[in-house]
This record gives sequence, C-alpha cells and structure tokens, in this order.
Amino acid sequence: MTKLQQLQGFLKEKHIDAALITMPDNVFYFSGFLSEPHERLLGVMVFQEAEPFLICPQMEVPDAVAAGWSFETIGHLDTENAWDKVAQAVAKRSITMRSLAIEKSHLTVERLEELAAHYPDARFERLDDQINAMRVIKSSEELEKMRKAAELADYAVQVGCEALTEGKTELEVLNEIESAVKAKGYSMSFDTMVLAGEKSASPHGVPGNRKIKRGDMVLFDLGVIYEGYCSDITRTVAFGEINEAQRAIYDAVLKANEDAIAAVKPGVRAMDLDKIARDTIADAGYGDYFPHRLGHGLGISVHEFPSITGVNELPMEEGMVFTIEPGIYKADVTGVRIEDDVVVTKDGVEILTKFPKELMVIQR
Amino acid sequence: MTKLQQLQGFLKEKHIDAALITMPDNVFYFSGFLSEPHERLLGVMVFQEAEPFLICPQMEVPDAVAAGWSFETIGHLDTENAWDKVAQAVAKRSITMRSLAIEKSHLTVERLEELAAHYPDARFERLDDQINAMRVIKSSEELEKMRKAAELADYAVQVGCEALTEGKTELEVLNEIESAVKAKGYSMSFDTMVLAGEKSASPHGVPGNRKIKRGDMVLFDLGVIYEGYCSDITRTVAFGEINEAQRAIYDAVLKANEDAIAAVKPGVRAMDLDKIARDTIADAGYGDYFPHRLGHGLGISVHEFPSITGVNELPMEEGMVFTIEPGIYKADVTGVRIEDDVVVTKDGVEILTKFPKELMVIQR
Repeated sequence: MTKLQQLQGFLKEKHIDAALITMPDNVFYFSGFLSEPHERLLGVMVFQEAEPFLICPQMEVPDAVAAGWSFETIGHLDTENAWDKVAQAVAKRSITMRSLAIEKSHLTVERLEELAAHYPDARFERLDDQINAMRVIKSSEELEKMRKAAELADYAVQVGCEALTEGKTELEVLNEIESAVKAKGYSMSFDTMVLAGEKSASPHGVPGNRKIKRGDMVLFDLGVIYEGYCSDITRTVAFGEINEAQRAIYDAVLKANEDAIAAVKPGVRAMDLDKIARDTIADAGYGDYFPHRLGHGLGISVHEFPSITGVNELPMEEGMVFTIEPGIYKADVTGVRIEDDVVVTKDGVEILTKFPKELMVIQR
Repeated sequence: MTKLQQLQGFLKEKHIDAALITMPDNVFYFSGFLSEPHERLLGVMVFQEAEPFLICPQMEVPDAVAAGWSFETIGHLDTENAWDKVAQAVAKRSITMRSLAIEKSHLTVERLEELAAHYPDARFERLDDQINAMRVIKSSEELEKMRKAAELADYAVQVGCEALTEGKTELEVLNEIESAVKAKGYSMSFDTMVLAGEKSASPHGVPGNRKIKRGDMVLFDLGVIYEGYCSDITRTVAFGEINEAQRAIYDAVLKANEDAIAAVKPGVRAMDLDKIARDTIADAGYGDYFPHRLGHGLGISVHEFPSITGVNELPMEEGMVFTIEPGIYKADVTGVRIEDDVVVTKDGVEILTKFPKELMVIQR
C-alpha cells in the first residue's frame, strides 16, 4: 500500500472528504517532490476516492513531474489566485467539501481563512497526528537513506577534527567541513555549528571568529542530507590537554548518552529515556546544567515528531528514528554535548552515527 | 519614536489590547534578537501601555538579553507549557484580552487554537499589514546595512567568476563562493545557485555535478547577510564564446532590467514596473519565456513585502527596497536572469548591487 493509499484509508475511516498537505517535507513524503516554495502555494490534495492533485508554482511543474508525481499537476502564476485553482480542481472532481483535514501545526491562519472562504460549511480537522504516525515509522528504504546520511555526518566530523589547528577560527573550520561535504555533492541539513572553548557552553551558539586555542574543547553539531533524509550528530573533542573539570563533564555526558541509548527498545517511553540521561547527569552533580530535552525525531525534517522530553509518554516502536543528545553547559569550564541518531529495532537499538565517542584528545 | 512605540500607537489607534509577534524576522525587527526557534515558541507581546515581554526557550534567555532586549524576558523549558507562561505574563499586567493582533500569514492554526483557548472571547485581528507597512520603509541605519550586504554579494559574484574553469562542477564553484564569504565571517542569505548551460534555464534549478564547458552561460544567484539584512543578486556570464541566440537573450534581459530600474521612483506602482520589463521582453520576442514576477521586497527577510507582480497596485515610496530580476529561460538555448537590489529614493532610485551588467565573456 502506498503512502497515498494509507492516507486515503484514513480519510475513509474518519469520514473526511479531503486532506490538504502544504508542509514542504510532507509534500515530499507523499509526492516525492521536494521544494521550498517560500510564500507561494505548494500543496497536495488527497481525496477518499478521486485522483489526488499537486499544486505548485507554474515554473516548478516540470520539476514535480520529473520527481515522479504521476497524478494531476496544477501550476499557478504569481498573477493568479492559487486558491481559486485549488477550488476549481476540487469542483472538477465533484467533491462536496464538508470536512477537510489540514496540518494545524503548519497551515497559517491566513490560509485557513482562504479555505474557509471557499468552504464556509466545512469542518477543519487535524491531519498532523495521522501524518506523524506514518512518518515516525521509517520503512527499510528510508532507513537505508538515513544510514547513508549518518555516514556522511561521521565523515564531516572527521573532517572537522582534522581541520583543527591552533589559531584557526571556528568559521574556518566550519568552512572546511562544509566544503568537504559539498565536494561530495551533498548539502548540510542545518547550519553547521563549530564552537570552541567558552563558546561551547552556549547550546545554540553561533560560530564566529573565536580562534582555536590549546586546552579548548571544540563542539561540532552538524548533519547531512542524503536523498531527502537528514542526519544530526554532535561530538565534542579536546584540542590539546584539558583539565580535570572539563574531563569530568565529558565523562558525565558520555555516560548519560550511553545509558539512554542502552535503554532504547520497543515499549520504553520517550520520558523514560529523558529521565535516564537526566538522572545520570544529576548523579554526577551537573543537574542544573542540562537545560534542554534529550532529543528529537529525525527523518525528512531535522526536527520532527517525536520529541524526547520528560513529559512525553509516547512508547517507542520499531522503526522510530530520533536523536539522543545530552549536554552539560558550564560557562566557566566548558560545554559538552554528545549526540547520536538511533533507530528502535525489534528488540533494542541500532546506532546510525558511528563516529567514536571516547574522548578524543587532538595533539598537533 | 522606537519601533515598539510605533506599534503601541497602532494598538491604541485601533483599540486592540495587544499584539503577539512570533515570526522570527519580525521578532528581530522589534527586539534586536535574531533566533530560529524551530517548533519552540519565540515571541514578543506588546501592549498599549504595559511593559512588553519576550518569551523564548530558557536556554536562549541570555542571548536575548545580550542582543539588547531590555524589557521582561521569559524563558520556557521543553517540559513547560509556554502558552501558560504567556497567559501568566498577561495576567500579571492586569490585561483583559478582548482583542489580540496576530501575524495571520505566519501564525499556525494550532497556535491560534492555543490562544483562543486562553482567550475565548477575544477577537483576533490581522497584524501583518501594519508590520509590512513599517518594515517596507527602511531607515537610514537599515539602508547602510543593506549597502554592505549588497557589496558582499558583488564580492561573491566576483569570486564565482574567478572560480570558473573548464571541467569544474557547479558545486565546486558554489563551494568556492561560499567559502570566500564565510572566510570573511558572513553567511549566505539563501542557498547559493550556480547553474551552467542548459541548467541555467531552470529558474529554480539545483546546482549539481554538471561541469562547466566552453560556450556555457553560467548563472549565479546568491545573497549575503550583513547584521541581519539580506542582499540578493543574479548575474549570468558567458564562459568562452557564446552564440548569437544566447547573446540575444542576454541583451533582452539586460534591457528589461535597465528599463524597469529606470522607471523606479515614488508613485510608480509595482505592477507598472513588472509591465515595463515584461513588455521589453515580449517586444524582443521572448514573451512566453519569462514565467515569474519581476521581483520581491528585501530586508531582514530575503523575500518580503512587497511583491513586484503584474497585479500589485502598491505605489512606490521613498525607502522601499526590492529586487528587479527579469529572466528568460529557453531550455534549448540558455537561461539568463539579471537581478539587482534597488532602493526608492526621493526622486528616483539607488542601485545597491554594483557588479557590472554588460555581458562578461570569460576566456581562460
């Protein structure tokens, strides 16, 4: 059964007339066509029985067809009202729109008002949970792509480690990493982070002209896209000898990462994993310095369902992919984060990111 | 008068109790704090009289303060309900929320439902047009930043031209461009485009392993961010000798670019500019090969209000900044686009992007 057929089954079961998908990553999931339309309308509309259609900017129609979309493709010009074209396509299919499922976590209020103007009697149902439930379980084809994406992330961290020399700036190191990945023909899945010394203690710091010094810990957080699927890895390494306080933080984060990963298997809840890592860090005396969730789902989007937080009761299922990324951030010592991408298997876990995690002390 | 005071004046005039701003670029505009919170809540709430507040992920609180936000800053953890914290901050100010202005083109339906649950009796008003009206007129400080951003874009195109050699791939050239910009400590404002030969004829093509050959036209579309403000330039150059058909397309696009720019001054409508360029291209016999609008507003966002289309009646005003980017795309000949960033001045136009536009034929 294709993904579109699965969605059609959902519409029939819930007695919903149609689903409109406009989040670009979801459009890619259902159509194979990956595009960032900015403010222009890009969408796939799916019905219980009638032929689905894709609507996109006119100039992207050939790209959508080339990407493998084999149903109707409707282009719209900047001078046309794209919503009128949607309405025409619905009317052509003789659909009476009494209920329409939308992505409430993505669709804007303005777009909802457009839809409500065309379908004043329609109920608008939440589509997000159904799509999350589908996307969260990765097929073997998807997992194969994610393994490749993770392999490329490992490679990128390796490039970063080799690039470290005294006096080089964070941005210069970042540059070498991204150049190496692009030279292989791939793109990063988000803005690469290279943070040295005290800057590693800012969980969302911005790489700049801070120069690498001996005694710094250097944090790499990066990811690569392989055929539409993202990886996301963090490693923290020592440049030259580091002190006991830095090492103690590293050891605590590594243990938290390993303890949480060891607990991954079907049935364990997201909140259980978060608690395991958080307890390990608290036991080591750093309970106040781990200010973020343990991880997030990963796939076509670099942040997707599910969120691995202390309040998420979702039980793990085979085929789920997410990050495990505990961190400790002490501005007067260092920041350390160690992040892996993991898959829930039938009875445990597969770790996709394989770059070594024992503390790497780079001497050169 | 500060931007916040201007917004407060709007609320008083329209008798709206508060405005909630959550689009990251708008948050930056009003707070000075630039951040991409992904699915987490980042917002600024402004009232007629009461002190505004900023809400952001807990770990970004120090960054917000460091960016210069001097009013209340509220952090939220992943384990907390950020909307409850918003409601508490509103209650602390003794505000009865009967009307709330929101960014309807940005706020999601899910977030609107959260707000409606907290304020079931509130009307939700459209804030977008007020913010657009403010942001569209750039101050002299903003223009100074945009001049710098454009200068960096000119530099990046120069690097691209120098990087062209036979057999190099689009991605390798792209890499050299982005490396050079990053080495100066700046980021690109969007994914750089380098498209060679037949690929230049895809207006939204993706750079890949296509190698540069003699007789290709090569299209560069790129931009750089300077202190939060974006540039956006396109130049198309010849690598080695090109034929008459390619040159004719270049000449038509250049004339369309120059004709439209020459017409820019206060009072002229967006649609007039689009028509001038479109007529020039049609007169040259390529009317069917210019499938997109003439341009778009530019500033903190790389695509912002106003859209320079054939249906936008908006008259130009001093201080508006937008792109002028006619293009012709004939798959069997070449694609050419020439894009400049322009500012409407008191009685005409200032062109920010200064890279030469006469056809550059690169021989090496």
